[in-house]
Amino acid sequence: MTTINDIIALCKRRGFIFTGSEIYGGLAGTYDYGPYGVELMKNIRNAWWNAMVYGRDDIEGLDAALISNRLLWKYSGHESSFSDPLIECKKCGARMRQDKMKDPKKCDTCGSADLMPPREYQLMMGLSVGAIAGGEINAYLRPETATTTFTNFKNVLDSVPHKLPFGIVQIGKAFRNEISPRGFVFRMREFEQAEMQYFVKPGTDEKWWEEWKKIRMNWWISSLGIPAKKLRLTPHEKLAHYAKAAVDIEYEFPDGFDEVEGIHNRQDFDLGSHTKSQKEFNLAAKVLDNTDSINKLSYSDPQTGDNFIPYVVETAMGVNRAMLAVMLNAYAEEDLGDGKSRVVLKLKPSLAPVKAAVIPLARNVPELISSAENLASQLRKLGLGRIEMENSGNIGKNYRRHDEIGTPVCITIDHQSMEDGMATLRHRDTMAQERIKISDIPEKIKDIIM
Amino acid sequence: MTTINDIIALCKRRGFIFTGSEIYGGLAGTYDYGPYGVELMKNIRNAWWNAMVYGRDDIEGLDAALISNRLLWKYSGHESSFSDPLIECKKCGARMRQDKMKDPKKCDTCGSADLMPPREYQLMMGLSVGAIAGGEINAYLRPETATTTFTNFKNVLDSVPHKLPFGIVQIGKAFRNEISPRGFVFRMREFEQAEMQYFVKPGTDEKWWEEWKKIRMNWWISSLGIPAKKLRLTPHEKLAHYAKAAVDIEYEFPDGFDEVEGIHNRQDFDLGSHTKSQKEFNLAAKVLDNTDSINKLSYSDPQTGDNFIPYVVETAMGVNRAMLAVMLNAYAEEDLGDGKSRVVLKLKPSLAPVKAAVIPLARNVPELISSAENLASQLRKLGLGRIEMENSGNIGKNYRRHDEIGTPVCITIDHQSMEDGMATLRHRDTMAQERIKISDIPEKIKDIIM
Repeated sequence: MTTINDIIALCKRRGFIFTGSEIYGGLAGTYDYGPYGVELMKNIRNAWWNAMVYGRDDIEGLDAALISNRLLWKYSGHESSFSDPLIECKKCGARMRQDKMKDPKKCDTCGSADLMPPREYQLMMGLSVGAIAGGEINAYLRPETATTTFTNFKNVLDSVPHKLPFGIVQIGKAFRNEISPRGFVFRMREFEQAEMQYFVKPGTDEKWWEEWKKIRMNWWISSLGIPAKKLRLTPHEKLAHYAKAAVDIEYEFPDGFDEVEGIHNRQDFDLGSHTKSQKEFNLAAKVLDNTDSINKLSYSDPQTGDNFIPYVVETAMGVNRAMLAVMLNAYAEEDLGDGKSRVVLKLKPSLAPVKAAVIPLARNVPELISSAENLASQLRKLGLGRIEMENSGNIGKNYRRHDEIGTPVCITIDHQSMEDGMATLRHRDTMAQERIKISDIPEKIKDIIM
Repeated sequence: MTTINDIIALCKRRGFIFTGSEIYGGLAGTYDYGPYGVELMKNIRNAWWNAMVYGRDDIEGLDAALISNRLLWKYSGHESSFSDPLIECKKCGARMRQDKMKDPKKCDTCGSADLMPPREYQLMMGLSVGAIAGGEINAYLRPETATTTFTNFKNVLDSVPHKLPFGIVQIGKAFRNEISPRGFVFRMREFEQAEMQYFVKPGTDEKWWEEWKKIRMNWWISSLGIPAKKLRLTPHEKLAHYAKAAVDIEYEFPDGFDEVEGIHNRQDFDLGSHTKSQKEFNLAAKVLDNTDSINKLSYSDPQTGDNFIPYVVETAMGVNRAMLAVMLNAYAEEDLGDGKSRVVLKLKPSLAPVKAAVIPLARNVPELISSAENLASQLRKLGLGRIEMENSGNIGKNYRRHDEIGTPVCITIDHQSMEDGMATLRHRDTMAQERIKISDIPEKIKDIIM
């Protein structure tokens, strides 16, 4: 049974993920993505963007700043209520999240019962931006991407023509000052989200919420290669005050099912919270009185002329969690007999960090190297992503490394190749080897990867 | 003559770039990228990553956290010296960067000569991360990507085998609390960099610095389509204390040549600053005594066994500046005669936000729409990026919009198409139209874009 520790070890050993600020003892809740982690994240982002933006006619992309004006987070409700209950131990000074304590009456660290009363701990990270600010917090790092999508609703609609229903997506960083980051990249202080806000006519929201549950579940299966039996839909036990319906897509992690994406019917809470002239609209959601917004976030129906605040169906995925799920699902330790074994990452080929490795069988033999370089250069022209050239002269070591980083195929050029123009193609999952004409390899690789 | 204001207007009108936090009066120095800005930025990033990572054998990618431990920025030297001289007016309270004042003796805003003495203003944005911090600054948003590359030098080298010379690249956000952000996306508080650190054997650094000047200059011309005459290399007038040589690639903006990329010979300053056991190495650069680093950032020569700190040649590009240069260079207002004119963005096709638009000539005619959808779906399968379907029934308006966002080709399906299987392909730059078999269009589009 694969554990999170197997993945953490692989990530460090093979350059997927390193501890953030490691050389100075780390910074809890932050991670640095190494050479293969960067590619895997990029491929997951692309799979999402391809499905959500390039594959459809009704969704626009956006990439808003990570730092935004305090007022955004006042009217979104985060400034007053995006907090966790914090308990501090008077004896040892430890700080804990009250709802996660082993025994709410005793310190998790020293066991003392002498605890401070709980207080609300703000999860947003505040900033003092601009020389004028003089140290006062006037901006926040965003705790999610959604709000900066809502506040750009009118900007997008005014510049790109759309009728309802249509959506706006963002992939980007978000920040939460978690009291206790945990589970490797599962709960971090700096993380990445891929979120869609789908704007619909009130009354069609339930239908679209059902529809997006199906679309997103299907994406996890078909685009990430996660088997359906490792996924489930779990309705929220308690709904946020503005939500009409909310469900999580959960993946079966080693410790049990846990959230990787949420699908929410947010009604008119968000556009209603940030719109000017709230009283003109008959809002369903309870919102703060907004006296600062300079723009109406409404939609005019071109047929009826009705001007109203659309409802929102949101899909919100954690990209780092998706990568963790993909790695856990792909990881295998295989017994090869004779006391030998291998670790292999059976990734969907389109997600693999390296698409193919080209290996000259012997090191520093000019004709082998030049033939290998030639092939690598042809494979690179296919535009499929990263192609690696090896030149260590140790093919066993090369295979082991490429199995562990999930490279779907290795191609070996040997002395025989110089005579017959054939090379050996080795498949990652089966370890089967076939002899194939070098000139046929680019087409073959395309078939495997795409 | 194209001005920055032409570009700002186009960016807002056509959904490239919006003011950050606009709906709440903005947040100076931040911008949100709209539907077409996202795609253009993505295409520029991909052009860079393709050239730097996928096109070579010697460069690895990295994506480090934006928030890092205070100690990184202590030992990099930023905490003590990354500041600008700030002048405050006693009369009106205005704050100015001393070296940018119109008259250093008088307030730029009110003209008063009653000014506070200059003080050093820290450009890094500090954060208090973790419940234990209690409000003290213990972390910073990174002001550049480079330092987080240096501190991961050993992590990358231990997980992916390389001999010198080799490089590590990052594309990502960086943050500077500029006193006066200016020039639209030219100088922002939140911006994006594409930086490479190339690690070389001391003694080969000058050769590699020359080499990278050529490679990078050539990339601006061949990958971004900027004519050579709009670019120049300008050596730094004053070198930073650790730099052996530094040159900027400058683009000719409407107000004159200005920096878009820097190429620096940083010697052993960076790895030397962050390494453990500095005394074991005969460092050329002057560095702070490091008592906190837990790792040696040295390299062992596999032939000689020598253990030493490599030198670094850096290339540091501003991605937002690259986009601004690309847009300025592509922008044209053309007189079409008869009092008509058009705005057109003559982007290199590979950089265009939308690769092709498919337009049914009349609106709501099912057979035209279904044929257009069919073609759009085939074009999407090419994986070239965004393909748009139009259905406004106003072809003049469609052409105008696609000229302004730089779509290389529009394809119109009309009633005649239903009979002869041909469609009209219109080229953005020449406005030339040709009649072409619908089944030949995917290959044709591939030729134009790739």
